[in-house]
Amino acid sequence: MFDATDIQMMQNALALAWQGRFSTSPNPRVGCVIARGSQVVGQGFHIQAGGPHAEVHALRQAGALARSATAYVTLEPCSHYGRTPPCAKGLIEAGVTRVVAAMTDPNPLVAGKGLTMLEAAGIEVQSGLLENEARMLNRGFLSRIERGRPFVRLKCAASLDGKTALSDGRSQWITGAEARADVQILRAESCAVITGIGTVLADNPQLNVRAFPTLRQPARIILDSRLQTPLHSHLVQDDSAPTLIATLETDEGRLNAYRRYPHISILRPSENHGRIDLNDLLRQLAERGYGEVLVEAGARLAGAFLEAALADEIVLYQAPKILGNQARGLFALPENPAALNETSAWQTVAVSVLGNDTKWLMQPARDIRSENDINA
Amino acid sequence: MFDATDIQMMQNALALAWQGRFSTSPNPRVGCVIARGSQVVGQGFHIQAGGPHAEVHALRQAGALARSATAYVTLEPCSHYGRTPPCAKGLIEAGVTRVVAAMTDPNPLVAGKGLTMLEAAGIEVQSGLLENEARMLNRGFLSRIERGRPFVRLKCAASLDGKTALSDGRSQWITGAEARADVQILRAESCAVITGIGTVLADNPQLNVRAFPTLRQPARIILDSRLQTPLHSHLVQDDSAPTLIATLETDEGRLNAYRRYPHISILRPSENHGRIDLNDLLRQLAERGYGEVLVEAGARLAGAFLEAALADEIVLYQAPKILGNQARGLFALPENPAALNETSAWQTVAVSVLGNDTKWLMQPARDIRSENDINA
Repeated sequence: MFDATDIQMMQNALALAWQGRFSTSPNPRVGCVIARGSQVVGQGFHIQAGGPHAEVHALRQAGALARSATAYVTLEPCSHYGRTPPCAKGLIEAGVTRVVAAMTDPNPLVAGKGLTMLEAAGIEVQSGLLENEARMLNRGFLSRIERGRPFVRLKCAASLDGKTALSDGRSQWITGAEARADVQILRAESCAVITGIGTVLADNPQLNVRAFPTLRQPARIILDSRLQTPLHSHLVQDDSAPTLIATLETDEGRLNAYRRYPHISILRPSENHGRIDLNDLLRQLAERGYGEVLVEAGARLAGAFLEAALADEIVLYQAPKILGNQARGLFALPENPAALNETSAWQTVAVSVLGNDTKWLMQPARDIRSENDINA
Repeated sequence: MFDATDIQMMQNALALAWQGRFSTSPNPRVGCVIARGSQVVGQGFHIQAGGPHAEVHALRQAGALARSATAYVTLEPCSHYGRTPPCAKGLIEAGVTRVVAAMTDPNPLVAGKGLTMLEAAGIEVQSGLLENEARMLNRGFLSRIERGRPFVRLKCAASLDGKTALSDGRSQWITGAEARADVQILRAESCAVITGIGTVLADNPQLNVRAFPTLRQPARIILDSRLQTPLHSHLVQDDSAPTLIATLETDEGRLNAYRRYPHISILRPSENHGRIDLNDLLRQLAERGYGEVLVEAGARLAGAFLEAALADEIVLYQAPKILGNQARGLFALPENPAALNETSAWQTVAVSVLGNDTKWLMQPARDIRSENDINA
């Protein structure tokens, strides 16, 4: 069904799609290659919401050469009129005779209709080439559509012995410059960065991307059940990205003090034992289009995400320093997990060295298992 | 001075020497290759104290072919009559015309006399080829001779968040089978394994090599200032290796209860603020021939080695599990280190994946720096 040329072309399309990794939010990352046999005649990727889709860029480049060509797309072409006309229509009009998609678009507005439209026009349509890779590209977008919540990545930094700060709170810097630069990439890839009010009060963070220019900044989300975010804090004063304050506070007067900043929105998630219900919060974030969120929080909030089994990935930067048992730990959790090999188990996906530090990438062990089952 | 053949032959000799890594204690690991040009005519390594030295094995194999050949040795040949006759004499009698040593032997009984003896016999002598590699081979032996204390390797196992056990003490098993098998290799390489009385009372460990057959078992050293080691414990009842109990107890009656076991020795290190003085303990261990020791201890003793800056290497096995801040930590240390980038800093030497766990190898940052200075 697929030959070596097909695979190569789809790999090209995936690589193109990744070029949009910092900028397409809330849209998915998509790449497109148009080829006649092994000759590429057009290629493109989606850069930014509101701008042309990948197929449009590729068709423009191909021009008349698109006639009788094959289009490789990392996601099913859209079939609906959104901010741009449907790409399926564009492919048909350009005279493409074959379309290979890595996966169908789970977005209910598309969901197979794009491929059906192409087939109805007599185009040969195939789907599923490098689908796993295409799903990885858009884990956040897919999570938001398929699970109704964002893909949640937990970022942590600790010493060799799992400490995040001295007992007096000093934490600058445990990890080195290379690890901190890598965090900038994680932020740039994210639709939003979540933090807790404890971190805002202690560090007054900016949570933005400063290491390199980007077309957009991630939104900042503060979990602030009692509405304690200082009005003079960076996240209130800096309007270069949206700030969402999730709170249990109901006093309209207090809320209005924040609402007068146009970049600030108030989220009102439901309550769970006096704290913000994380499941409800994530549901609301997905509704607002946030697909990929990065949690940069202290031990309590990070522990709460783990306890609720809402972390899809952990990125741990670990420095070869030793702070001792009195120093502050990574995760506030209930006293004793039921069993050492159960809920607390993760699967190491990758380990790499960044300067003098080590970067761990982990996914829940059960996800890996079920994924293996699917592939087996 | 050295050509490609020399380097290749010395690499062979080093690889041979490593074959003795589990068995030569308290002797150094030594390999020898005898070659005529690029033709190896004899090779050998030291297997066990009391047995023939590497040169003897190699000369036996070479026989008459040793005449006019070059001998490559990872350590200066001995010049003294010990349990075996001097190897320098053997090389002279065999008619070897050139000897290349990776390093001189710092043992005061040799210390250049071996090379001098060879030169006096008209043999061309060179030293220093792959010296760093040769020193690595015998870090323990060299430390004992040059610093008067063993090379101390700290072995730790922890969860992702630096925890060694649940708050109720459960710790079996945080790391997986691969990591635990790797610890068996660390033990087999060590002259002795050090543990604390806390571990003996809690776990009644065996501290021996069980995963594969070995010619010798490492000695077991218990730091037991108040002499609480149970007489029924494995380390008292199992006489397959020496057990050394280091204690501050002075009651001869209590001490004699242990002394009646032939494999048990009592060490009487000096006291330091009510605890065993680790510097004095290590000095005594070096005197007794222990060059490479492995510390497998709890947070207090491991922390004490770190605090006294007596750890030369840390091997940390880390499992991707999360136990939470209430669980037990790796190192009991004074509340706050003076600065985050000072005494607590280590240098990552290697990171590898063992099954689902990660193995970190670390050395003190300052050692690495001074080593780089030397090489620069």
